[in-house]
Amino acid sequence: MPQRTVQLVLHYDGARFAGWQRQPDARTVQGELETVLARLVGEAVPVLGAGRTDAGVHARGQAAGVRVADRWSPTALRKAMNALLPGDVWVAAAYEMRPEFHARFSATARRYAYHVGTDDGARSPFRRGWEHAVSRPLDRAALDAGAGAIRGEHEFRAFAVKGTAPADDHHRCIVTDARWEARETGLVFHVEANRFLHHMVRFLVGTMLDAALGRRPADDVARLLAADTNAGVSPPAPAHALFLDAVRYPSDLYLDPA
Amino acid sequence: MPQRTVQLVLHYDGARFAGWQRQPDARTVQGELETVLARLVGEAVPVLGAGRTDAGVHARGQAAGVRVADRWSPTALRKAMNALLPGDVWVAAAYEMRPEFHARFSATARRYAYHVGTDDGARSPFRRGWEHAVSRPLDRAALDAGAGAIRGEHEFRAFAVKGTAPADDHHRCIVTDARWEARETGLVFHVEANRFLHHMVRFLVGTMLDAALGRRPADDVARLLAADTNAGVSPPAPAHALFLDAVRYPSDLYLDPA
Repeated sequence: MPQRTVQLVLHYDGARFAGWQRQPDARTVQGELETVLARLVGEAVPVLGAGRTDAGVHARGQAAGVRVADRWSPTALRKAMNALLPGDVWVAAAYEMRPEFHARFSATARRYAYHVGTDDGARSPFRRGWEHAVSRPLDRAALDAGAGAIRGEHEFRAFAVKGTAPADDHHRCIVTDARWEARETGLVFHVEANRFLHHMVRFLVGTMLDAALGRRPADDVARLLAADTNAGVSPPAPAHALFLDAVRYPSDLYLDPA
Repeated sequence: MPQRTVQLVLHYDGARFAGWQRQPDARTVQGELETVLARLVGEAVPVLGAGRTDAGVHARGQAAGVRVADRWSPTALRKAMNALLPGDVWVAAAYEMRPEFHARFSATARRYAYHVGTDDGARSPFRRGWEHAVSRPLDRAALDAGAGAIRGEHEFRAFAVKGTAPADDHHRCIVTDARWEARETGLVFHVEANRFLHHMVRFLVGTMLDAALGRRPADDVARLLAADTNAGVSPPAPAHALFLDAVRYPSDLYLDPA
């Protein structure tokens, strides 16, 4: 039976998920998607994500790949899935991809945003689920120094969970964007890289915030990167303020360039 | 024992509340506030709201009055309440008021906002709980005609729940502001009046949206107001997109004008 390869672009509110990856006894994003697809298609359809997100982390641009029978256009598949999915997962877009598309290995970059609320309103019910509230004053120069140190190609061993070497056993990442954006009610850290290690964005933000609160030297991100050791990093910033914003693929993998 | 009169300015996410008003077997905003105050103060403290909000309706400016022992400064009361309240209710501010302050009868105006999402993203998990998603094109001129008809002093019998005459048995409201604001992803209806009847904003929005979708004449709001009958109104728009934004009091009721 002829098949199509479809990329799903996903939004989810991570609050009530035990992360992306399917688990036997926990509610996960991959699990919800596979349950809905099995209902639609009548058989098990694996959903392969571009990467895992931790429990509590949100997405407004996670990517996943599925193979479905030819009669499912990407538009029809998206509509049918959204009709069945719970309110906290949503297929924002669906694209037909070339058969060689692989959601994880074809990705050239991932982009994250970390939201820090610095005004009192960050504790309101309309923001507290999506922002890390920091009430003490932050030294913007220290944040910018940290972001500047991150940009470029580095070994990020200091900012990975200890003892969890990636499969290819190196910690090198190429960071093409890292900057703090000022907003009326706080700050957002944007970071894009070819790959991210486990908890890496949250370790980076935790360390930069500690520097910006005067708890450690402003140049500590640079020092930790240079030291290439996993000792001395700050605790990871809370998961609920982190968003996976985008996954990038080469344009020639899209079948319909529109 | 000397007492203070305190105005609490409240934010709440209405999703998991059966409305404002205390009920024996349902989770309500007033119920949560009174439970927390009783724990803090050691005795029952009635919380009097400026008005009731329906199940599902949110607030980012509801007002309530409480009387507490003199040792509770408004700041200390706010901080202590926020430490105990669940995440979906938040005391945004607390002001000491003159003893004659009455949260309901002293209010000179209430202000609401109704959020309509017109792009596809209104169905995302980050917006669907707070916006009414309308995917068909809306006639902005019809919306503006409706808002224009609402402004001023009118009998709003057409836009009140049938058979629920207010205590003072009239439907007259003075609407000081009513307008649609265009945003990048939709429209927001802002309305301020000296008083609102039960479901009034939702009936008004439901009728204006039907006119803007071509389901009824564009001048129907004006016609219904003039007819002064409760027949022929559109169903109320959904509760989850309505926010009580502010309650206004005369400035001389505030003890500390800061």
